[in-house]
Amino acid sequence: VLAVTDPYGARRVLRPPGVLPQQAEALDAAAPLGDDELLIEVDALNIDAASFRQLRGECGDDPRRIGARVCEIVAARGKMQNPVTGSGGMLIGRVAQMGPSHPAAAAGVRVGDRIATLVSLTLTPLALDEVCAVDIARERVEVRGRAVLFASGPWARLPGDLEESLALRVLDVCGAPAWVARLAREGMTVLVVGAGKSGSLACAQAKAQVGARGRVLALDLRAPERLAAAGLCDGALSADATRALEVHAAVERATGGALCDLVVNCASVPGTEMATVLCTRAGGTALFFSMATSFTAAALGAEGVGKDALLVIGNGYAPGHADLALELVRKHEALRAIFAA
Amino acid sequence: VLAVTDPYGARRVLRPPGVLPQQAEALDAAAPLGDDELLIEVDALNIDAASFRQLRGECGDDPRRIGARVCEIVAARGKMQNPVTGSGGMLIGRVAQMGPSHPAAAAGVRVGDRIATLVSLTLTPLALDEVCAVDIARERVEVRGRAVLFASGPWARLPGDLEESLALRVLDVCGAPAWVARLAREGMTVLVVGAGKSGSLACAQAKAQVGARGRVLALDLRAPERLAAAGLCDGALSADATRALEVHAAVERATGGALCDLVVNCASVPGTEMATVLCTRAGGTALFFSMATSFTAAALGAEGVGKDALLVIGNGYAPGHADLALELVRKHEALRAIFAA
Repeated sequence: VLAVTDPYGARRVLRPPGVLPQQAEALDAAAPLGDDELLIEVDALNIDAASFRQLRGECGDDPRRIGARVCEIVAARGKMQNPVTGSGGMLIGRVAQMGPSHPAAAAGVRVGDRIATLVSLTLTPLALDEVCAVDIARERVEVRGRAVLFASGPWARLPGDLEESLALRVLDVCGAPAWVARLAREGMTVLVVGAGKSGSLACAQAKAQVGARGRVLALDLRAPERLAAAGLCDGALSADATRALEVHAAVERATGGALCDLVVNCASVPGTEMATVLCTRAGGTALFFSMATSFTAAALGAEGVGKDALLVIGNGYAPGHADLALELVRKHEALRAIFAA
Repeated sequence: VLAVTDPYGARRVLRPPGVLPQQAEALDAAAPLGDDELLIEVDALNIDAASFRQLRGECGDDPRRIGARVCEIVAARGKMQNPVTGSGGMLIGRVAQMGPSHPAAAAGVRVGDRIATLVSLTLTPLALDEVCAVDIARERVEVRGRAVLFASGPWARLPGDLEESLALRVLDVCGAPAWVARLAREGMTVLVVGAGKSGSLACAQAKAQVGARGRVLALDLRAPERLAAAGLCDGALSADATRALEVHAAVERATGGALCDLVVNCASVPGTEMATVLCTRAGGTALFFSMATSFTAAALGAEGVGKDALLVIGNGYAPGHADLALELVRKHEALRAIFAA
């Protein structure tokens, strides 16, 4: 273990000089482990959906060719960042070695513990010995290899009581409920736009925050009422979130004209910024967790309608986010059903 | 005046049906004034820089042809939204008629008052009688025409004591100091990235908020020290905001490792999200006012380095934002010099 402090992995960037690992063309995964780094014996890569789709197309849906292409990319770049889509994914493995200053050491992690990285593969140094299997349905590549986790990189212990692929899907969106926990207060009216995986977690957490005097509404084009029926929210609105004026009218009716203290955007489609802005009351907060959010559409949209709202970019990290989301899923059978699907 | 309530101008959308005026292909500027609308006799259009550049190219820098093209666009669309760039600008004129429920009536505005709209021309119904002159240097088109302001659209009285084009430049970025006023607190260390027009206003306001126990730093590639010399901030860092690790090292040195409670991004170039995130302390706030901000770069960037920060989209509107910014410029001669340039 080298006595260096390098929380962002700057010394592992091969080229171009001076950039962060995410922006790098290639990383050095083979350099000796630093004092504040953690070495993972990797079992599986969960490739991001956009990247996997591209690999399937390029390799004619052939698992063997996909595996060979993954090896090729990792050999060239020292990380599994798809050169076409630019995207990555997550990985699972066992702790092989821990630098004494890596935060996992203080958190009681031991060599051999099974963990998932919560930072993108696009910035994770990786070397592969072999690809063992490619599971096309699950967008998963089983491998033997080694990865390095920097001191600044979030990770989570894989829980023993939940199915691994279910736990991974929860961990993938665990930032949303954590930020809802921070921004939702007792008595608030909260609207969650998009009742999918992250939206259902946001609903459950919002309901815990607002208490009996508050109210949580879920809005989706498809079956938002299943969340209300499962007790994850108090009311459901069936509407197309890209149609801002219709959504606004529906939310005005549902709230007696008061609109919402907090609107959480978990939509999976673009063009939902204005519905989010219009449904937030003056002085309220709009929290954007949809990766399809356009910065300018939100900023200029709020300005154009003179909406005095705090507009928040959903940060994928908050301390304790993994445990909070896993605990929600343990508590609510309905969430387990949503994440098992 | 029609007895209708239509704060977002939905009834003026000609096509496609159901969208907001900003997304509309064409607006109806001729419909009778509504109860909650305001009619402006327009003197001048301040065309947005991207749009004006496109018009100059298309019209071979000929003022006459630019004027004719502006007439053509407004005749076709009922608004001055450049069909190539999609962008607009602002307008200046006199209040010609006020619906009794428009907020300007309650604010004591009178017919004949000179105002500027603070909402984009991309959503402002407009009809032109003629183009009188095109000022290429100032990206300004003098016209005779009529525009409609909705109840939700921000506007400002033009101050009598400041030169009009200076006042317009201030009004164009007045959201930044207003949100700094809300997010900066006494004793904070604030970093402003980008020491241009909005950045210098952000510095001046931050300095007023943090008081003698706080500290305001300005970071820019070009001459940030002029702001410190003028008393608009306490310290200046000369660095390239696209080089996150270098910026982080400089800010660590300048703050004794503590980093900043609030970082305000007013950069004019893309790729400055990570410098902003890295310089924000854990538990701090990053406020993005640069229109070049990438939503995903900020969200995934913060996640990738495990930075627990509130990431805020700079909202161009906040109550009182115009008066606050104009007052700052009155108070600081250095700001007047920056905005006169």
